[in-house]
Parts: sequence; C-alpha cells; structure tokens
Amino acid sequence: VRRADQRAVRTSNLSLVARRIAETRAPSRAQLAKLTGLNKTTVSSLVAELIERGIVTESGLADTRGAGRPAQTLELDDSRIAALGLEINVDYVAVCVCDLRGAVRFRATVGHDNRRSSPAVAFELLANLAGDALAECDALGLTPIGAGISVPGTVEAETGMLIHAPNLGWNEVPVAQHLRDALGNPPFPIHVANDANLAALGELESGALRGVDDGLLLYGNIGIGGAVIVAGAIFRGSGGFAGEIGHVPVRPFDGERCRCGGRGCLETIAGQEAIARRVGIPGTRSVSGSPATIVAERARSGDADVLRALDEVAESLGVAIAGAVSLVDPRRVVLAGALGTLAPWLLAGARDAVSQRTRVAPTAVEIVSSELGDESAIRGGAALVLHEVLSDPTCAEARVQRSEQSAVKRAGLVVAPG
Amino acid sequence: VRRADQRAVRTSNLSLVARRIAETRAPSRAQLAKLTGLNKTTVSSLVAELIERGIVTESGLADTRGAGRPAQTLELDDSRIAALGLEINVDYVAVCVCDLRGAVRFRATVGHDNRRSSPAVAFELLANLAGDALAECDALGLTPIGAGISVPGTVEAETGMLIHAPNLGWNEVPVAQHLRDALGNPPFPIHVANDANLAALGELESGALRGVDDGLLLYGNIGIGGAVIVAGAIFRGSGGFAGEIGHVPVRPFDGERCRCGGRGCLETIAGQEAIARRVGIPGTRSVSGSPATIVAERARSGDADVLRALDEVAESLGVAIAGAVSLVDPRRVVLAGALGTLAPWLLAGARDAVSQRTRVAPTAVEIVSSELGDESAIRGGAALVLHEVLSDPTCAEARVQRSEQSAVKRAGLVVAPG
Repeated sequence: VRRADQRAVRTSNLSLVARRIAETRAPSRAQLAKLTGLNKTTVSSLVAELIERGIVTESGLADTRGAGRPAQTLELDDSRIAALGLEINVDYVAVCVCDLRGAVRFRATVGHDNRRSSPAVAFELLANLAGDALAECDALGLTPIGAGISVPGTVEAETGMLIHAPNLGWNEVPVAQHLRDALGNPPFPIHVANDANLAALGELESGALRGVDDGLLLYGNIGIGGAVIVAGAIFRGSGGFAGEIGHVPVRPFDGERCRCGGRGCLETIAGQEAIARRVGIPGTRSVSGSPATIVAERARSGDADVLRALDEVAESLGVAIAGAVSLVDPRRVVLAGALGTLAPWLLAGARDAVSQRTRVAPTAVEIVSSELGDESAIRGGAALVLHEVLSDPTCAEARVQRSEQSAVKRAGLVVAPG
Repeated sequence: VRRADQRAVRTSNLSLVARRIAETRAPSRAQLAKLTGLNKTTVSSLVAELIERGIVTESGLADTRGAGRPAQTLELDDSRIAALGLEINVDYVAVCVCDLRGAVRFRATVGHDNRRSSPAVAFELLANLAGDALAECDALGLTPIGAGISVPGTVEAETGMLIHAPNLGWNEVPVAQHLRDALGNPPFPIHVANDANLAALGELESGALRGVDDGLLLYGNIGIGGAVIVAGAIFRGSGGFAGEIGHVPVRPFDGERCRCGGRGCLETIAGQEAIARRVGIPGTRSVSGSPATIVAERARSGDADVLRALDEVAESLGVAIAGAVSLVDPRRVVLAGALGTLAPWLLAGARDAVSQRTRVAPTAVEIVSSELGDESAIRGGAALVLHEVLSDPTCAEARVQRSEQSAVKRAGLVVAPG
C-alpha cells in the first residue's frame, strides 16, 4: 500500500468516526468500535487525533450501570472551530456563526433593498456584518474555517459565481471573489449556493427535514424558491434547476404574468411581494420589518382582509403542492422563509387543498413549518462548511494555522466586540 | 472464501460480462477483458458458461485490420430464451414475446372494455393471448422464462397484487395469482407493475429514454399516468406514487372535477376519454380502434374541430409539463401511449407553451414522442424479465429445465401455431 493511499484510508476513517460521533448521543470509544466496525485500538488512535485537531472532545462519563471502570463519552467539540453562514437576499443581508455542533453563536440581519443599489453596496454591508461575526469568533475563542453564502438565484458552485438572480436583477456577479476582497483575503474558503437549496440543507441538518428521504421545501422570499429532496439529499435535475416550485402554474390561463414568461405561477400569488401588494403594504422590508412580519402581525390582530387574503394564498399553495405530491410523492413538505413566518395562517388551508386534491393515491404527506425560522439559509451556509470538516477532519487544522498567521491582517477589518 | 461466496462472485461476474455484451456492439473476448477489468482466462471461462446457458452466442469475426488471428465477436443469444410482456388496460389486453436482445417476435392486442366485466373475463382473454404467445415461442424454439404484466393502477410488487385501478374500478385484484391459475401454473415467475412505469422501462431500455438520466414520461390512456426518471431509473417517491402527472392541476379553479378529488387535473383535459368526449366520439376502443387512433385519423384528414381541440390539449399539456420542468428539471420528456399516437398534433403546441413558461431557467428540455408506439408497456413488461436474466444469468437455466418438464402440462392450454 502506498503512503498516499494510507493517508487516504486514515482520513476516511477519521471522517467515519467523526460522523458517528455527530450522529450518536455521546458514544464511548467502545460503542464507536461497534458502530464503525473498526477495532478498539484504531478507534482510540483516531479519537486522539480528532481531539488534537479540535473536532472532538471528551464530554463526561458513560452510565455503565454496574461493574467496570466508567468510560469517557465523546462529542463534537463546540469550543474550537466555527463556520460562517452568510446571506444576500433581495431586501436584507444576514450572517451567523455556527459551532461544530451546528449551534448558532452569533447572528445579525440588516434590511437593505439590494435591487436599488449596485452589488458593491450589498457586499460592503455583508462584509461589515461578516466583520462583526469574525470579531465575535475571536471573542468566543472560535477559529473560523469557512463561509457559505446564500444568494437568491442560480449559481456556478465551482467559481462562486451568481449567474442570474431575477428578483435582484443581478447577472454574472462573482460573489465569492467580491466577499474575499471585502474581507481582505481571509484564510478560509468561501462557498456560494442558491438560497432555497441552502435553506433545505439547513432544515435537513437541524430542522424540519432531519431524517427525511423524500421531501420538498418551499422557500418564501420576495419570490418563491424551493428544493426537492431525493434520498436525503438535494435533487439538482438535469441542469441544476430542479425545485423551482415558485414557477409551477396555479392560474395558468387567467393569472398574472410572471417574470419567467409564464402566467399565474405560484410566486405571483404566494410570493411575499404578491401578498404585500394584495393587502396594501410595501413589498420590501421597511423599518417595521419584512412584509411577511407585518402581514403576520395584522393576521395575529385579526385583520379580516388579511385573513381572507391568506386563506386564498393557502389554497393556491395547496394546489401547487398537490401537483408536486402527484409528481414526486414527498413524505414531508416544509414551508420556510417568509412562508414559514406566515405558516400559522397557511398550513390548515394548504393541507385541506392537498388532501382534497390527491385522493387517488393513499399518500401520507405531512405539510409543516420550518423549524429554523428565518435562519434556514444562513444555517445551511454554515452547514456546507461543517459538512466539509466532517468529510475531511484534516482540512480544519491547516485553516486554523493560516487563520492564526493572518490574525494581524484581519484585525484591521474587525469591529471590536461590545 | 466460503463456497457460497465463490458462487456469488461467479454469478456477479457472469452478470457483468453479460451486461457489457448487451451494451457493446459485438465485443471480442479481449475487448471484454478491458471493459470488465477481469483477466482474459476468467473472461473466456465466463463467456463459455454464458454460451452454454443460452445467454450469449458467437456472432462473427472482429475486424482486426492487420496482423493476428481474427477474434470471434459476441452477442446476446436471441435464439434460446424469451420473455412475455402482458398488458391489461381499461379497454384492451395485449401481449408480446421478446427475445433476449429485446426484439419483439410476436404481439397481439384484443379490444375489450374491462370496466364492464369482472376481472375473470379479462384474465380469460389475457390467458388466451398468452397461450398464443407461448405457442409462438414453441414454434420459434424459444423457451419462455418469465412474464411481466402491466396494469393501470397501483401495485404491490412483492405479491403481484393490483391495489387500486381507478379507471378500471378494480381494487385488490391478485393479478399474478389469477394469471398463474389461468396459465395452469407455468414454470416461470410472473411480475406485475404499473403501466406508466413499465412504459418508462420500455422506453429506457430501447426507446426515447435510452441513455437519459433525468426524464419524464407521460403515458396517455383512458387517463394519464407517468414516470419521473432520476439517475436513469424510475423514481418511486416516498410511497411509490411518484410520476402521476395526470393529476397535476391545469385548471384548478374552473376545471372539471377529477376522480382524484381535484379539479382541472391534466387527465380531465388530455386523457383519451376527455379528448374523445370533446370531439364527440366514443371514449373507449371500438371496432374502428382506440379513441386516439380515430382522433388521429380525423386530424390527418384535416378536421378543423379536431385540430382546434388538439391545439387546446397541447397547451394544457405544455402547462403541466412546464410545472414539472420547474420542479424536476428533466432533460427529456416523452409522450407515450395515446399521447404518443397524438404526438404529431401535440408536440409543437406543448413545446411552445413550455418554452414560453420556463424562461427563468436556461433549461434545454426536449419534448419528444415515444419510439415504441403502443408497445411501450408490454415491452417494459418483457424488459423486467430480461433485466432479471442479465442480473443473474444462472436463473434462466433452472427455468428452462422446469419449462421442458412441464411442456406436456402446458400443451393442453397452448393453441397450436398456424
């Protein structure tokens, strides 16, 4: 066996052990040996390396119920490394810091209508937020090892290029490069991905899609994006465009023209801007919050016009979901983003419409709200980075070293905490 | 290595070599060694066994262009074993015999409205056709090694039970058992599957979906079924109900009530019965042929009412396909069954509607007609059996032996050829 192969096997075993620790509730080394099929000596050596690399930590004593020396339990280490989740959307930018267990340690959002300014302004805002996040990492003693940015459009993942964001009016924007420049070339990789896909990843990782093999997510924003889940992963389709449930026609003959060329697409009825227009409030985020937040407040206060509008939106949602159920038969459908905010007034109507319209198949689809509120996409951005660490636990160390070397450079940019 | 494991490895290698021969144009043993990564001695031994089992045959001499002894080329043997494809649909029953290369050697269809009689009558008709097919196998010197039956409804594959066929009004019909009884307990397995799924399998195997990773098939019949293709295989969804594009809503608010509980489903507009009603002809097969055949004849003769009706059907098809394109982003969409028969008058309109309504994604979806005409589902039924032989080339022999033993029994049922 060549040395390169030995190293690859070692890395793959490190990843296996780290994943089992992530999935299992505080296993001991002996339990890990059973879970991985590796022998105890190998497991002990792998765990020692993971501890040294800041991926794993000893968390306490296992309950042995009887004889024998109590064994140490293991967990992912939440005190050493962190991932940044970032989001540029139509009317806000947002950021979060997640530790290796996926817990959110810092988050911030700034409302800004990114359609009315050049991308440069949005990146300046985002870089400021990211600076706050990096400062918070310093304060918490966490080393940032990567960032994932959510954008509302189609993306070329390899280059970090935003190809087309129709609701922003942006085309061919090198997002990763812009952010890299704005952050003074930070010593960690920057990934770019579609907002609905990252929201789905966030929900798969630690929200309403956890453990779901076949699912569907609707991500409400100014428009509506989505993701189809096949075999527990995001389904791309032949060209990477799968999941666009916002452009499923609901009123294809008498509906409003949609920017996609169609008529009566779900987005023209249940997109945040469409709902706002219908109830007579501004279609973009204001000092009072996002349109969905304002609509939710009015609904909560019993505004009859708003409640009637939401009933109609719910039925249209149900029509589009019924079509998707017939086509891809998901186990669970999740309303996220602005649709998650409005879910309390949408779920019952959507469920009714779906059950009335899909009686042919004894389908048992569940329609539920996001469990991550407006954090789905940024948490998905951070999850992209954390996945990478669990796939190759050796990648973090190099980044930690580079990060320490460049701490001086970065200090110039960082806004001091508190 | 235990003997059972050795046998499993041998079977898996037999399957590998048989599949490579099926996929490649007349390879030599040397080429097979390259294609499989097995050494030449092993390949020669495996090929010898496949020849003996009637799976493979030497077909000629390779063009060696120069020095060296010309090598024998290999192909699947089309002279020894055969599979039966059977179909019970709403208004006809059909059968075909395919050889191991998938070529149709015999086929027959009988029109009969299966909604107006008990399942027993349909099985009698089907058993008669199957008897003709078995007699034809005898005449051709082919040994039948399995049958796949297509039914228009949901199926429990393990038991061969038709759970629910809404357009037939049949529930819980033990199809495999009925046919087994009607054929006097034949010495080969009988598989049961959904018609649209088998049509998709037929098209994947030797029609318009060959080589397609992400696809969609619409199977027109009295109603409309369908199949979503993911990674080159039929996608089942969480409960096995994926692909039902006939119940995607096209006129969800002002359309006709559908038997699924919905309103304005694609099936209520583009199903064969809906089209027939619209142009004023009988909704089920008559002596003049299927409704689609009659509509096609009228369209061919330039009947203006029929052409106008088909234009409207084409637009509705396009609306449903546009929604499916947004959701699952297929590379190719195939119109099969009755929709294949009518494709010459539907394709242009459907393509227009899709391209107008999906401008948001630079999708390159192709919308095409079935390449197998009304044979998609029965050929898919036969393909189920032939897949099984290529997965385990040792299974055929046992069946051939049992088949010979039971030839006497079967003779009672078989209609003498000619």
